[in-house]
Amino acid sequence: MGRSVSDVTENRNMEISGRPIDDSRSVYSVGFPPRMNLASQFAHKVKEMFFADDPLRPYKGQTRSMKFLLGLQYLFPILDWGRSYDLAKLKGDVVSGLTIASLCIPQDIAYAKLANLEPQYALYTSFVAPLVYAVMGSSRDIAIGPVAVVSLLLGTQLQNEIDPVKNPEEYLRLAFTATFFAGVIQAALGFFRLGFLVEFLSHAAIVGFMAGAAVTISLQQLKGFLGIKNFTTKTDVWNWQTILIATAFLAFLLVAKYIGKKRKNLFWVSALAPLVSVILATFFVYITRADRHGVQIVKHIKQGINPSSAREIYFSGSYATKGLKIGIVAGLIALTEAIAIGRTFAAMKDYRLDGNKEMLALGTMNVAGSLTSCYIATGSFSRSAVNYMAGCHTAVSNIVMSGTVMLTLLVITPLFKYTPNAVLAAIIISAVLGLIDYQTAYLIWKVDKLDFLACMGAFFGVVFISVEIGLLIAVMISFAKILLQVTRPRTALLGNLPGTTIYRNVEQYPETIKVPGVLIVRVDSAIYFTNSNYARERASLMCALSSPIKSFLSTAVIDIDTSGIHAFEDLHTALQKHGVQLLLANPGAAVIQKLRSSGFIEIIGRDKIFLTVGDAVKACAPKAREDA
Amino acid sequence: MGRSVSDVTENRNMEISGRPIDDSRSVYSVGFPPRMNLASQFAHKVKEMFFADDPLRPYKGQTRSMKFLLGLQYLFPILDWGRSYDLAKLKGDVVSGLTIASLCIPQDIAYAKLANLEPQYALYTSFVAPLVYAVMGSSRDIAIGPVAVVSLLLGTQLQNEIDPVKNPEEYLRLAFTATFFAGVIQAALGFFRLGFLVEFLSHAAIVGFMAGAAVTISLQQLKGFLGIKNFTTKTDVWNWQTILIATAFLAFLLVAKYIGKKRKNLFWVSALAPLVSVILATFFVYITRADRHGVQIVKHIKQGINPSSAREIYFSGSYATKGLKIGIVAGLIALTEAIAIGRTFAAMKDYRLDGNKEMLALGTMNVAGSLTSCYIATGSFSRSAVNYMAGCHTAVSNIVMSGTVMLTLLVITPLFKYTPNAVLAAIIISAVLGLIDYQTAYLIWKVDKLDFLACMGAFFGVVFISVEIGLLIAVMISFAKILLQVTRPRTALLGNLPGTTIYRNVEQYPETIKVPGVLIVRVDSAIYFTNSNYARERASLMCALSSPIKSFLSTAVIDIDTSGIHAFEDLHTALQKHGVQLLLANPGAAVIQKLRSSGFIEIIGRDKIFLTVGDAVKACAPKAREDA
Repeated sequence: MGRSVSDVTENRNMEISGRPIDDSRSVYSVGFPPRMNLASQFAHKVKEMFFADDPLRPYKGQTRSMKFLLGLQYLFPILDWGRSYDLAKLKGDVVSGLTIASLCIPQDIAYAKLANLEPQYALYTSFVAPLVYAVMGSSRDIAIGPVAVVSLLLGTQLQNEIDPVKNPEEYLRLAFTATFFAGVIQAALGFFRLGFLVEFLSHAAIVGFMAGAAVTISLQQLKGFLGIKNFTTKTDVWNWQTILIATAFLAFLLVAKYIGKKRKNLFWVSALAPLVSVILATFFVYITRADRHGVQIVKHIKQGINPSSAREIYFSGSYATKGLKIGIVAGLIALTEAIAIGRTFAAMKDYRLDGNKEMLALGTMNVAGSLTSCYIATGSFSRSAVNYMAGCHTAVSNIVMSGTVMLTLLVITPLFKYTPNAVLAAIIISAVLGLIDYQTAYLIWKVDKLDFLACMGAFFGVVFISVEIGLLIAVMISFAKILLQVTRPRTALLGNLPGTTIYRNVEQYPETIKVPGVLIVRVDSAIYFTNSNYARERASLMCALSSPIKSFLSTAVIDIDTSGIHAFEDLHTALQKHGVQLLLANPGAAVIQKLRSSGFIEIIGRDKIFLTVGDAVKACAPKAREDA
Repeated sequence: MGRSVSDVTENRNMEISGRPIDDSRSVYSVGFPPRMNLASQFAHKVKEMFFADDPLRPYKGQTRSMKFLLGLQYLFPILDWGRSYDLAKLKGDVVSGLTIASLCIPQDIAYAKLANLEPQYALYTSFVAPLVYAVMGSSRDIAIGPVAVVSLLLGTQLQNEIDPVKNPEEYLRLAFTATFFAGVIQAALGFFRLGFLVEFLSHAAIVGFMAGAAVTISLQQLKGFLGIKNFTTKTDVWNWQTILIATAFLAFLLVAKYIGKKRKNLFWVSALAPLVSVILATFFVYITRADRHGVQIVKHIKQGINPSSAREIYFSGSYATKGLKIGIVAGLIALTEAIAIGRTFAAMKDYRLDGNKEMLALGTMNVAGSLTSCYIATGSFSRSAVNYMAGCHTAVSNIVMSGTVMLTLLVITPLFKYTPNAVLAAIIISAVLGLIDYQTAYLIWKVDKLDFLACMGAFFGVVFISVEIGLLIAVMISFAKILLQVTRPRTALLGNLPGTTIYRNVEQYPETIKVPGVLIVRVDSAIYFTNSNYARERASLMCALSSPIKSFLSTAVIDIDTSGIHAFEDLHTALQKHGVQLLLANPGAAVIQKLRSSGFIEIIGRDKIFLTVGDAVKACAPKAREDA
């Protein structure tokens, strides 16, 4: 008979399907999609890039007033979820709001030091920012406020420009300026739907960056541990009281954290531990007057709520430029963190988060903050997790937290006078240790070595050089990965799984058998100008390395541009010289359309294009057998 | 029975293949490739990026002396092809060499003006550069020398730094400096195997850039047409003799070009036309002494071969930096042109061109040139085409051309004294008009609108703003395309072609039928950090838009990184909340390996991974039927 197994099975398929038997081809031919005109093509591209989530879908077919209402709800999601708000939800939100407030107040006082600012500025931030976010944000679980890494990043960058000890006023003004521009950048990214740009910092890079920042912050805090206020002042370097306080409370905090981690229903132990530590330590210092024996204390937190800072912002001059630069870096990191947190909890509770909308909310929040004496706020991972576990339902928990912080500012800030810096250092260290996600790092190591390189590059860059250099290394490694992706498409040689019409990668499936005389190449990528020459040379190399062939079968090309078609033409010319025919199997919709437009289909012949690899092999099998 | 058609056919396949009937799955399972250790994984990545063409293959298993010889042959391909050189080849090379010499001498004198240099520098370039290339280059057809676009680009950029009329000496020195650095950059790209970087200027962008440069050059030459030497001198603006000469010879050249294009065997008509024009025009001016009536003439070309210029190059100071900057831009454009020409003819004659090796040769050539009073040389498309048609066999034709230019420099340069500038302008215009490739532009328009945008951006940028801005626009549009590629993977919903086990894009194949209860999504891309969030949101959107489903089947994912796995985990969590199971069909080798390493396979269950879409559909079809 001389017909192969695949022939028979293919024809059986045809018989069974009740369609006429066609000896040479499947009954279906390759689909030619309808041509799009220029306007719809362009509209399609723009939509794919900027409106991929189809944000206008709910507006279709609505009345004008309804559209307006929907638009308002889009801008202020509180109008949406607020209508179905009830007492049961309020109960959960109050409990979780009070819990994160108890966590955030001591953390705020501590984090402000990382940004070289006085403690009240972090409290101001925890008052205004959550209110704005609650109205505009769409995450239900995120806890808004100052965070350790952004505080450190902002502090480091501001310090490079202005000395916070010598020029505290200018330093503060530059901090507001950076916060303002960070907000503007964040909001602009969201407004112009450029949110995808934050994706360029890969997950692996963030893990490394966060861990590096945590190590850097912890090392800095050792100063607080040893009772050193400032290396320039001649205080007693080894102050045993300070070391005692710090060590004792760090141990307490870590034990509480461990308990909270081990038993999920005891999470409140770790959530309340910082506040308890602060109260105990403050009381201890107050009764022993340890501050007279060299223990550094907070001394003074300004009472009262946020003053206006609109006039403090530099809108022109060299400080405006510097503030813009700092704001871009810190704002993007803050954004990345907030979006990652929002997405994590949205996935856990199964609701959708619109990244661009979130950026608009976070940006507006920071702009508002910069006008009311706040510095950059974002989502805190640890507090968001506590918020989630304490049973928050909506952003009302942020409002509750904000109210608690306001009361703190109005009433109880004087009580923090005797709070020792050592306990704040212990709080910071215990908080940032959670950012060292060695388990994820190990997973990254196991899964993808290039990702691990980005992770480690960011980590060591931050620890040994600086926060900015660490970021730069991470971004550069991420770009190298993109470069590899766009210039080096994966190609695979396919073979037949005996007894089937299935063709698979010969390296992945050792049971496959190569079809004699036919080289089947799968290109798992679009062939664009960045990789067209590589793809062509790769094809030539494959031909050269294989036994003599009569047919070169290319399959699974996803998309093509003019350079790609050029490469195909060159390949076709080269193959023809050797008497090899070029076949295509299962070209994508975009590919077949462009090959038709360019006239390449007529060059190779319409009969050289097949629906499946099996069809193509069947069509050139007789020739293969002649050779065998 | 309740079994679908695809069930039956699949099982028939099994029967036919003589293997046991398995009611639920194919006899083959998904291939798990062997794990690679870190070193081999890293080596693999490096090889893929930098040594994809396997340049060390010929060296394997050779003796040490043989390896040395092969290494020498790699550096100096003349040692390879020179051994099989014979008289028949010499004949073809001499004819083609003389032909391109006759074309290049008048072109050189004209092109030097574009670079604001005296004519002899272009002739120097056509003497030294082809000799170096002949020894080191691997293209057999390329014709080396100064070209119009690079001359213009160099001239424009040099002019921005130094006025060529006021400071001709410094201008010349900066030209040599730029040439030197262009060569260094070219050679470095080749040496460090970074040749893929030139791919980032897409074919479409080059077409637009070349056409724009051609229009710019032609407009410039109208000055020569009108008899204006320089807008600052008060010569007669409308010199009828000049206009007569220019118009007559342009008409002659265009007719000759048309003849050469129409009848391939008369290509020599167009090849010789420029030389004939120069001789006729020079003779005409000489006998009529038209130069006394306002016709601008060449006046003087320095006799003798290249002087050394090693001491002229700025190796330090601000001019060195400027030279470097100019050299990078002009060198990369020159490189892109030469590589494109080399590849075109290599494909036509079916030999391999090593891009990195070519860059090394071209770079060395320009470094050597910069030391011997040459400016940037590259491959000329028009002269290479003539070289090819005149029957060249090897780079010996370049040596013949070089020898002819040398004789010209030594003996006949004084004869060019009375050559009118107008005929040179006509030669330039007739040459660069060939760079306006409107047919390709039309093809690009038909095939890919985004490519056309890059093409037009480059064209209008060059024509209306400047050569550099045009280039910048082209590069930026190309990058936007890469951005679109890496952030927005193509996804498709698949349906079944009735009566087969084939699943295809429902948009491309309207005859497909969706499988009830199963959403089959094909992701035609690797899922990396740049697109993982998009892919996940896209998947959620698809679920939301489809009728109620019980299974979500993902197929054809090519590669994945930790962010991609993260996205899969989130998707899995979200699907579970809705009681939808996640299935994978035909995962690639890299994907299955990473999913295994990350433990994700255990999360969804090994029984959720299928060899084919058909298998997966069969496994969840009963559930689908319950719903129906």
